[in-house]
Amino acid sequence: MDPKDARQSAACSTVCVNNPHLGAMKDDSLYHFSLGTTTHDLPAMFGDVKFVCVGGSPRRMKSFIKHIAAELSMEDAKSEYPNICAGTDRFVMYKTGPVLSVSHGMGVPSTGIMLNELIKLLHHAQCTDVTIIRIGTSGGIGLAPGTVVITKQAVDATFLPKFEQVILGKTVVRNTDLDQSLAEELLQCSKELNQFETVIGNTMCTLDFYEGQARLDGAFCSYTEKDKQDYLKKANEAGVCNIEMESSVFAAMCKLSGLRAAVVCVTLLDRLKGDQLSSSHEVLQQRPQILVGSYIKKQLRAKAVLPTVVVL
Amino acid sequence: MDPKDARQSAACSTVCVNNPHLGAMKDDSLYHFSLGTTTHDLPAMFGDVKFVCVGGSPRRMKSFIKHIAAELSMEDAKSEYPNICAGTDRFVMYKTGPVLSVSHGMGVPSTGIMLNELIKLLHHAQCTDVTIIRIGTSGGIGLAPGTVVITKQAVDATFLPKFEQVILGKTVVRNTDLDQSLAEELLQCSKELNQFETVIGNTMCTLDFYEGQARLDGAFCSYTEKDKQDYLKKANEAGVCNIEMESSVFAAMCKLSGLRAAVVCVTLLDRLKGDQLSSSHEVLQQRPQILVGSYIKKQLRAKAVLPTVVVL
Repeated sequence: MDPKDARQSAACSTVCVNNPHLGAMKDDSLYHFSLGTTTHDLPAMFGDVKFVCVGGSPRRMKSFIKHIAAELSMEDAKSEYPNICAGTDRFVMYKTGPVLSVSHGMGVPSTGIMLNELIKLLHHAQCTDVTIIRIGTSGGIGLAPGTVVITKQAVDATFLPKFEQVILGKTVVRNTDLDQSLAEELLQCSKELNQFETVIGNTMCTLDFYEGQARLDGAFCSYTEKDKQDYLKKANEAGVCNIEMESSVFAAMCKLSGLRAAVVCVTLLDRLKGDQLSSSHEVLQQRPQILVGSYIKKQLRAKAVLPTVVVL
Repeated sequence: MDPKDARQSAACSTVCVNNPHLGAMKDDSLYHFSLGTTTHDLPAMFGDVKFVCVGGSPRRMKSFIKHIAAELSMEDAKSEYPNICAGTDRFVMYKTGPVLSVSHGMGVPSTGIMLNELIKLLHHAQCTDVTIIRIGTSGGIGLAPGTVVITKQAVDATFLPKFEQVILGKTVVRNTDLDQSLAEELLQCSKELNQFETVIGNTMCTLDFYEGQARLDGAFCSYTEKDKQDYLKKANEAGVCNIEMESSVFAAMCKLSGLRAAVVCVTLLDRLKGDQLSSSHEVLQQRPQILVGSYIKKQLRAKAVLPTVVVL
């Protein structure tokens, strides 16, 4: 696709690829999905997708597709929700109606691979008006564990709202703004649900879970408890509510491709009070699913009503 | 553990953690393995480990444990090689005799999480004389697909042998040297096997698979085919034989913890000739397994023979 065409497409809410080389390729193999334009009829398989939910854990993304199918009353008692990416073990993908659920593994590089291939998939499938939401887990700063954070901006380890992408050995800085109206709609939806605390705030995205997030419990640690507290408090003063490992590449790539995007993460612990995670946090992990499931249901209901009114 | 003790331990070939806080912790939860010091008897489970093989794909690491069990004649026809990390879907782990096989997902952050917890596991289990080898896939530069590359140094996207770790918002540069004698032993082993071409060279480790590796087939591309070729040729002139996404953090962390470490990756394609991967590359992925399996067998045989000679 010509870049000019891509920009025009973005204007009519298709998914934008900014790559002049793609149009010249006879076949596009989406290797880490084990899908391709020659081997699969992507418009038939995915053309109706309106919501994509992504998250790190394969199990959680399977759990989400069951949850959303029940929410939308689309569940099939016999269906096992087959993994569309069964030909590979890199990512999993499930679909019910207009909702796609995809895992992205842990960290920026893994998430970047998935998003490159997801954006191309949505483009090849000629999807329109797609909303994409990352549902994840995070460490909170000064928030009660279980609080859900909707990301305003993804910031780096120096609290700046940018994502650095290295291209041909040179660093290119990309914007990490997310869709503010979508964030507000999600916050409103959480207020209506009234099941758990939800806030909008900045999310710090790091390349490491231990030293990169000032943990004291990794294999290596060269700083003190006070150094840790000082760093996390500075982050908090800069507007950081929580810390995870994918939001910056997610925000940057969704913005470049014209996708309406949000990041919704539950905080599993208050990092001012500790570092270690335990399996007792598992029930909290469902909160982003509950919120986003409720939001999607509300949106689809609203859209289904509109044409009916026009017809009447 | 006191840092001084850790350094002394390294001298007698235990696994070194450089973290004075760990000794004060009553329990250490290795969250992404779903293992812990209170819930599991780590010395009993892992104390005999001498070789750890790691790789991105969970399926490949299961395939490796079956391969090495057969090589060492330790296979149990009934055994399904249970996943030791079954309590989580983040990583998989399998064990047969003194060999541990662990997945690390894709990219530096995911691999860093796994290595932090693996190094702590080996430390808690009081393992000694551990050799760790990453078996992976990569894109080659100017090499016939299927060539196996043993990494001399892991270099970054500007071809420099360093790994940048951000700690408390500041960048710390770490050394990415790997064990040269281990690399030579592996090369010698491949010569004896005589099944495929193997070379020693530098490996470029990137944070992105598409733009970060100068691919023309991602969702975004702002450069030309000539720009790509120029960049890859410069990399090759700087000694880079192949490109992957984990070697720098692997080299840096293994060096810090005193582990004898190597990276053995097969090249799935020649990046000077193309960008796309296909499933037809799957048979090539077995080559690092074959080489490392053969090496471990040779080492264990050599060690088993020595005491017998002494006893006689």
